[in-house]
Amino acid sequence: MDYELRARPDTCHWGYFDNQLDPVLRVESGSVVRVECLSHRAGDAPDLMMNDTVLAVYESLNYDERGPGGHIVTGPIAVKGAMPGDTLECRLLGVEYPLPYGSNLAAKWGWLYTQGETPLKTSEYVTIYKIDGDAAIPVFQYPWPSGRNSRKGDLIFPEDVTRLPCTSYRVPLRPHLGICGVAPKMRGKVSTIPPGVFGGNVDNRHFMPGTAMYYPVQVPEAMVFMGDTHLAEGDGEVSGTAIEGHLTVLVQLALHRQWTVPGPVLETDEAWMVHGFGETLDKAMTDTLERSLRFLKSRGLDEAEGYALLSAGGDFQITQVVNSIKGIHAVIPKKLFNHDTKE
Amino acid sequence: MDYELRARPDTCHWGYFDNQLDPVLRVESGSVVRVECLSHRAGDAPDLMMNDTVLAVYESLNYDERGPGGHIVTGPIAVKGAMPGDTLECRLLGVEYPLPYGSNLAAKWGWLYTQGETPLKTSEYVTIYKIDGDAAIPVFQYPWPSGRNSRKGDLIFPEDVTRLPCTSYRVPLRPHLGICGVAPKMRGKVSTIPPGVFGGNVDNRHFMPGTAMYYPVQVPEAMVFMGDTHLAEGDGEVSGTAIEGHLTVLVQLALHRQWTVPGPVLETDEAWMVHGFGETLDKAMTDTLERSLRFLKSRGLDEAEGYALLSAGGDFQITQVVNSIKGIHAVIPKKLFNHDTKE
Repeated sequence: MDYELRARPDTCHWGYFDNQLDPVLRVESGSVVRVECLSHRAGDAPDLMMNDTVLAVYESLNYDERGPGGHIVTGPIAVKGAMPGDTLECRLLGVEYPLPYGSNLAAKWGWLYTQGETPLKTSEYVTIYKIDGDAAIPVFQYPWPSGRNSRKGDLIFPEDVTRLPCTSYRVPLRPHLGICGVAPKMRGKVSTIPPGVFGGNVDNRHFMPGTAMYYPVQVPEAMVFMGDTHLAEGDGEVSGTAIEGHLTVLVQLALHRQWTVPGPVLETDEAWMVHGFGETLDKAMTDTLERSLRFLKSRGLDEAEGYALLSAGGDFQITQVVNSIKGIHAVIPKKLFNHDTKE
Repeated sequence: MDYELRARPDTCHWGYFDNQLDPVLRVESGSVVRVECLSHRAGDAPDLMMNDTVLAVYESLNYDERGPGGHIVTGPIAVKGAMPGDTLECRLLGVEYPLPYGSNLAAKWGWLYTQGETPLKTSEYVTIYKIDGDAAIPVFQYPWPSGRNSRKGDLIFPEDVTRLPCTSYRVPLRPHLGICGVAPKMRGKVSTIPPGVFGGNVDNRHFMPGTAMYYPVQVPEAMVFMGDTHLAEGDGEVSGTAIEGHLTVLVQLALHRQWTVPGPVLETDEAWMVHGFGETLDKAMTDTLERSLRFLKSRGLDEAEGYALLSAGGDFQITQVVNSIKGIHAVIPKKLFNHDTKE
């Protein structure tokens, strides 16, 4: 490890990216950084999901100044020499769990609430999970108190709600960075909610230890943000959130100057995943397919061949449907190609 | 094997389901049937993809009488005693490859053609694949001759087009039944193109040997159809077709009287997959999520718990975007549950 970045009131921001912020750390390409990331859902069970670090950040930020997005992000980290046109690799080397609890919110921005024709009978509600070996198990649930703001990390103490038992099931742990990316080009406070070409709230559950996400650098020094860490999520994140929990991540940040990506691209041992976005899933599908063709073009396949190959061997999956701008990722297995190296 | 159903002019239909057709076979629940299924894309390379069986079916059907859908289906098979309200299990036990070639069409109904804002520069075109061990490799491609109908299985001989070489890549074989299901309730000739609650052109590439699809029986005796066999497909089937090829399938048909499914549900060793459909992907997403909640309800989870569980551990993937009615399937891993048996 080359650097450590603790979560503190002066290294965390609640609800926005801003490319004009002073960097909280400046690193060389190739550096390994340990970054504390805090969940904005710790208020769902303060007795279980808060420690002194978390409480300090929650208390330092005036409630009304949180936003326009909902997430706590740590950063920005400046990467020396990064310039627009470069690609930044963020390789996730490992994660630690500072606290063994996480929270899922069936939120008013969840899929069935926003699809007006078919509202859920139930109100917003929370499920608290505890880490149990390699899985998370639900320990209790409660309806979110009506009239309170579920976006900004309000604190809900046990005496304010009735904690109800859950049916027994197990969700395998799949820790990942919900938010990671370079600072967007746009001026001022940019909401953390919609993802974009710069990355941000991509919410791809496959961004787990052992994988790397590549982002096209938008502003000088890249200005990397991380947060919205998840203990587990399904492709889709249909209820509005994953199992949200604090994670301390070990990441390596590396610049690539001779290689460009058409938006966030994830590399796993087995596949490339190209991300696209849109206001509807249909628009996200078109965006993902077009970016995938551009990605395959950089590997020597012309438009006709890339299109045919994706139909036969590329899998289109729903990244998330709850971040205002929806996401789809194309999974392009490496074994499709005879030559597996990046360049 | 209890029965054999060969593909012949009197056991095949081109482009429609019809619940008033006489069954071509009548079986008891639990029977294992070997069914020859023919691809409607054999005309893309008649020299490689036709034998006497295929040619007999192609020649027996007046070109103008094909339709309203595009696929050749074998059936219907009556299952004795099946009644609406029952569930039919179609378990795929194995496949054989009568010919070692398949065809992919980048079709006018492919995603980038129908998304008007971003038309492909290329016209419709064909890629012919050859089976090579456990993969299919592209051997040549050609532009589909303009003015010809690419839906109905027109015959394109080598002398009519220039067969061009392809870049080298390999697509793993993933043989499956693109079309399978019970006869729909609707009267008359029902197009084979849009999938529905009865199944049909679901096009889930995961319906491979070792898996079973469950369908809610719509009409007496179920009246099962199969066809549109694929050598491989990616989730999405973006270009309009998979790698289409003939397959002879070994299937077991079994009735379940005390268990209902909310539409086609696939069971693999590891997961349940619940299918939903819609005119847009967003509508398909809602349909899939609602059917998944109904499926989970039958396993003891209430609406709130099912919704939370799917957000944390259920994966929503795009089945296909090119069958008029689009499809999404929810992958619900069996390991989420403590109790794994169906009932």
